[in-house]
Amino acid sequence: MKSKIKVSVVGGSGYTGIELLRLLISHPNIIIHQITSRHDAGKLVSDVHPSLRGSISHTYVDPAEAKLKEAELVFFATPNGIAMKHVKELLENGVKVIDLAADFRIQDVSIWEKWYEMKHEATDVLKKAIYGLPEVNRAAIKDAQLVANPGCYPTAIQLALVPLIKSNLINTETIIADAKSGISGAGKKTETPLLMSESSENFRAYGLTGHRHMPEIEENLKAITGSNKIKLTFIPHLIPMVRGIHATLYVDCIKDFDPSVIFNQYYNDELFVDVLEPGSCPETKSVRGSNLCRLSFYKIPDSNRLVVLSVIDNLVKGASGQAIQNMNIMMDWPESTGIDLSAIYP
Amino acid sequence: MKSKIKVSVVGGSGYTGIELLRLLISHPNIIIHQITSRHDAGKLVSDVHPSLRGSISHTYVDPAEAKLKEAELVFFATPNGIAMKHVKELLENGVKVIDLAADFRIQDVSIWEKWYEMKHEATDVLKKAIYGLPEVNRAAIKDAQLVANPGCYPTAIQLALVPLIKSNLINTETIIADAKSGISGAGKKTETPLLMSESSENFRAYGLTGHRHMPEIEENLKAITGSNKIKLTFIPHLIPMVRGIHATLYVDCIKDFDPSVIFNQYYNDELFVDVLEPGSCPETKSVRGSNLCRLSFYKIPDSNRLVVLSVIDNLVKGASGQAIQNMNIMMDWPESTGIDLSAIYP
Amino acid sequence: MKSKIKVSVVGGSGYTGIELLRLLISHPNIIIHQITSRHDAGKLVSDVHPSLRGSISHTYVDPAEAKLKEAELVFFATPNGIAMKHVKELLENGVKVIDLAADFRIQDVSIWEKWYEMKHEATDVLKKAIYGLPEVNRAAIKDAQLVANPGCYPTAIQLALVPLIKSNLINTETIIADAKSGISGAGKKTETPLLMSESSENFRAYGLTGHRHMPEIEENLKAITGSNKIKLTFIPHLIPMVRGIHATLYVDCIKDFDPSVIFNQYYNDELFVDVLEPGSCPETKSVRGSNLCRLSFYKIPDSNRLVVLSVIDNLVKGASGQAIQNMNIMMDWPESTGIDLSAIYP
Amino acid sequence: MKSKIKVSVVGGSGYTGIELLRLLISHPNIIIHQITSRHDAGKLVSDVHPSLRGSISHTYVDPAEAKLKEAELVFFATPNGIAMKHVKELLENGVKVIDLAADFRIQDVSIWEKWYEMKHEATDVLKKAIYGLPEVNRAAIKDAQLVANPGCYPTAIQLALVPLIKSNLINTETIIADAKSGISGAGKKTETPLLMSESSENFRAYGLTGHRHMPEIEENLKAITGSNKIKLTFIPHLIPMVRGIHATLYVDCIKDFDPSVIFNQYYNDELFVDVLEPGSCPETKSVRGSNLCRLSFYKIPDSNRLVVLSVIDNLVKGASGQAIQNMNIMMDWPESTGIDLSAIYP
Repeated sequence: MKSKIKVSVVGGSGYTGIELLRLLISHPNIIIHQITSRHDAGKLVSDVHPSLRGSISHTYVDPAEAKLKEAELVFFATPNGIAMKHVKELLENGVKVIDLAADFRIQDVSIWEKWYEMKHEATDVLKKAIYGLPEVNRAAIKDAQLVANPGCYPTAIQLALVPLIKSNLINTETIIADAKSGISGAGKKTETPLLMSESSENFRAYGLTGHRHMPEIEENLKAITGSNKIKLTFIPHLIPMVRGIHATLYVDCIKDFDPSVIFNQYYNDELFVDVLEPGSCPETKSVRGSNLCRLSFYKIPDSNRLVVLSVIDNLVKGASGQAIQNMNIMMDWPESTGIDLSAIYP
Repeated sequence: MKSKIKVSVVGGSGYTGIELLRLLISHPNIIIHQITSRHDAGKLVSDVHPSLRGSISHTYVDPAEAKLKEAELVFFATPNGIAMKHVKELLENGVKVIDLAADFRIQDVSIWEKWYEMKHEATDVLKKAIYGLPEVNRAAIKDAQLVANPGCYPTAIQLALVPLIKSNLINTETIIADAKSGISGAGKKTETPLLMSESSENFRAYGLTGHRHMPEIEENLKAITGSNKIKLTFIPHLIPMVRGIHATLYVDCIKDFDPSVIFNQYYNDELFVDVLEPGSCPETKSVRGSNLCRLSFYKIPDSNRLVVLSVIDNLVKGASGQAIQNMNIMMDWPESTGIDLSAIYP
Repeated sequence: MKSKIKVSVVGGSGYTGIELLRLLISHPNIIIHQITSRHDAGKLVSDVHPSLRGSISHTYVDPAEAKLKEAELVFFATPNGIAMKHVKELLENGVKVIDLAADFRIQDVSIWEKWYEMKHEATDVLKKAIYGLPEVNRAAIKDAQLVANPGCYPTAIQLALVPLIKSNLINTETIIADAKSGISGAGKKTETPLLMSESSENFRAYGLTGHRHMPEIEENLKAITGSNKIKLTFIPHLIPMVRGIHATLYVDCIKDFDPSVIFNQYYNDELFVDVLEPGSCPETKSVRGSNLCRLSFYKIPDSNRLVVLSVIDNLVKGASGQAIQNMNIMMDWPESTGIDLSAIYP
Repeated sequence: MKSKIKVSVVGGSGYTGIELLRLLISHPNIIIHQITSRHDAGKLVSDVHPSLRGSISHTYVDPAEAKLKEAELVFFATPNGIAMKHVKELLENGVKVIDLAADFRIQDVSIWEKWYEMKHEATDVLKKAIYGLPEVNRAAIKDAQLVANPGCYPTAIQLALVPLIKSNLINTETIIADAKSGISGAGKKTETPLLMSESSENFRAYGLTGHRHMPEIEENLKAITGSNKIKLTFIPHLIPMVRGIHATLYVDCIKDFDPSVIFNQYYNDELFVDVLEPGSCPETKSVRGSNLCRLSFYKIPDSNRLVVLSVIDNLVKGASGQAIQNMNIMMDWPESTGIDLSAIYP
């Protein structure tokens, strides 16, 4: 019998952190070694997250005292800009890393620095980072030491677009992504617009003039096509609910094709992408708590326009579930180990 | 001192009905004469709508026994297909009519019958109906005997598009309206998807293959332009909240222009359209309970694409508030009489 | 024609502040003179509260530069501890004051200082303060220069209890108030538990070991009875919604009586208390946006226990609406001036 | 290696049904044999419940054609009054039964018939039914052929009361249970008050004059004490959310004792009851999706009154999770098999 491996979690007090812990707790192949938190060091994890009482007995470790090298794999569920300070040393010690933040999602350093408004401190290891969208990059992830876990919007949007773009079926310069996210996507920040009194019974766009997930999507779609001809209009909106992303994509077809065939072929062997009947409407609640992306589409009659709908749980397939999926691939375990969860409904 | 006029409400038990009553109760120029309801005839209105206890003492009248001709103006807040049976007789008796349902929104009978799946029974009076979007049709509404109150989506979407289309600034055949509505837009129907357990913490598109508000929008935009070249991709979504519509419009500009100038000029004298700064994001909650439409827009850099955002309260500017605005215009009263309400926030 | 009076609002950027402004804007007898805000001084009120765009043109004044004495009446919608620094000077200049915070709600200084954890700086003017629950104290409010506007819970709870206590019908030492409030009651504070991600789809008690509204209720009930024998078990809970308080009261009857008679007699002439049929269940949504308290009750069979249910909108009858009701009484205007609003439903 | 047993589910289309399926799908010791539905016979389960797409391949079987006797254990997730028609035959064929409805929860037939307004058709097998609250009845459940799975409120309330009542520490005739439930507790019924437009942003009591869970609680507490001296004031309320029950219990102590000792002793070995620190406030969200009950309590100073707070997920510990816990006990499997789930947060 194969023994379990040790994994550690850096930054376990936010929403992706707690979701990662929920999933790791029931993962059969790992032992959680250490969980760090600058803010909550010394406290019981279950005191900070009462939902985990009885499931976890760890105490938060101060990042300065953490023994990350003792783990075989380390997850960073930290704010942007933290992982890049630690990854080099970990890689040099043979520790695998999955970063759930944005430090390694964009290879073009100047674009990254412009959008994230800080200096990138690990441009050398950045080159080794593999963008962790398994349905696109599985082979590379398998051999990766460092995986950049995709953003939530980029996951939902790219899964809707990649089969079309790879087959050269759409105009890649007129894509529209009208995306909507539950409020947990904004994290556990104490900001006025995230208060229940403000965001409940309310709907609005945000980041109209630019969102960091746009360059991430554009760069990775360019990498897939090998062309620079990608242009995305990306408008994110905030839904008055906690979990879930719904992306509505509008694309112009440049060929005649049956989207049903394209999507079903591309995702035929995928465990975590579910292609619905044409014209049906996937619900965010139908994937809540699960690692699934459900997709549908509809060709507008008498037109070359195709609408694609894509839903995920932003904290699972859009963050922590996908991180575990990446770990499973990196470790050569069955890809659904520990994340073979049905959605929780209603 | 001018005396008050009598108005009656046919079908006062749904959500547009109760909202109409809320607004009529405090309107200074009218007396509510009769309120009919097939289902609740004989009951106190305030027993059916406890929120109106103390504000209204009327008893629901059976439609068969209602004396609609005694009123100077009658509102129909009925399901589709009811008003068309009664309007002719009312008009012949000099009674003005505002229909909040869809019977008179589309002049093309064959299109109407296709989308509403019934025979139109008043094609003669249909010709006299004026589409009641005051910001477009004010002069005609002033002289109208019969006003077709616009649908909620069409109101939000047309207010965002009309200034652009009237000035020939955009390609009218590639318009995309990604629209989102609170659940009260679906009415007070006891259908499974409208249950709180289903629709709360959930987001989804619906009517992907066609929604009745699309032909309404297309016909009225054609009437404005005098051209047949209008094509709209319209995808409605359901927001997990009660009140509010958010329309996100994507249009292709065919000229260079400053949208700020266009929108501000067009709406300069309008009481109920508020043009925000470019790039800002209007919130549905900022218009909740009010008759306002708030608009914003953003030109995508290095592109001819313009994004326009438009929010209304679907039950007020999208239904009952606009009906009263139309009544005020028809009666030559100050247009904001009885609907000069600030939004209720939070 | 009587001219309008000037009123000013100190601290107009929180939720009671914005609700007070919404109501004052449409009040026919007043002009809003100045609105102060330490944090937002110099900004347009409508920039801070976009829901008021078009309704108000004021700019926030720095409190240090405000000319409060120019007003005939000043509202304090400030945090606790602010009003007590300014009231003396205002009263000496003949300015009437209504404090929506807690500075003057409790006459017993030692109790106040214990619960509010600060020194009371205006114990002399405190004696002149009248507790502004019109249904109990109307005569005194009429002549008051300084009114302490009650807390939200105390309003809902006292309106349910006072008729019973005044008539010596219940054991005043075994009262239980199981109260539930929407989250706007906690104000516009950026605290983690008030985030939508935390408080949505969640229900919990809070302040189990003590809440400041308990001594307020106890003191005022003692004042009514003239006895010290008041003991309240008060457990507040947080509802995953924005507006509304529901108080469920459990009392032990010491006499045989018909609660219907008692409540209807006591509230017979009251505009803002609506007594429902025994056994019915008032809904918070039926009073949302209105100044009403709706009450119901049920006598447990074969027992001396009576259950009383009471609902209000915490920001209206529980705060700003009641403040205007108090102003109307102090100014000898019709009591419902400016607050004769139907609830907004759904 | 022990082989898996076959279980069938009668009535798998409601909310307890779908939750039961979610949990059974990942239960390692069972195979789902048949799932019946009168309404959806012939349809794929995953077409009716899209959240289960990919997790389950069953087709709903018509109840008339179901081969229930082929299963080793049958769950009834049916409306009340169905199970009692089928249980006798199943028991005679050696099939174990767990009824999630109310048919076997109350032994006193006359009381059952009064509250459920129908004739009981299986009074003989009723006597064999064991009330399936494992923390009270584990030994009897172990040997049971027929388990009556408790109601959701009764589970939350009894877990809060039983340790106190068993130790004779409280007056059992003055108990108050102020209980609050998410709306999924009302099931998937298409009734107006359950619509999102009605129940969102709303809070109200219901069933003020009587709720069927009261006699269930009273009878079972009587069975525990062996005395008739149980009297409960039980007031249920509807929370504007989907999942979760919060019970606030008010009891009068008749002895001096440390509730912390009592609760911790009683639940020391229980896997699914979590006793929190005195004075803390358990949140419903901290148990969402899990089979846990979290409890807390607070002794009111200078009084003999104790407040106990208890939260569960009404669909898990309050229904389907507890049903599986009962199955595990009946089958002599580790009690947490398949239900060892952390809560999903946020």
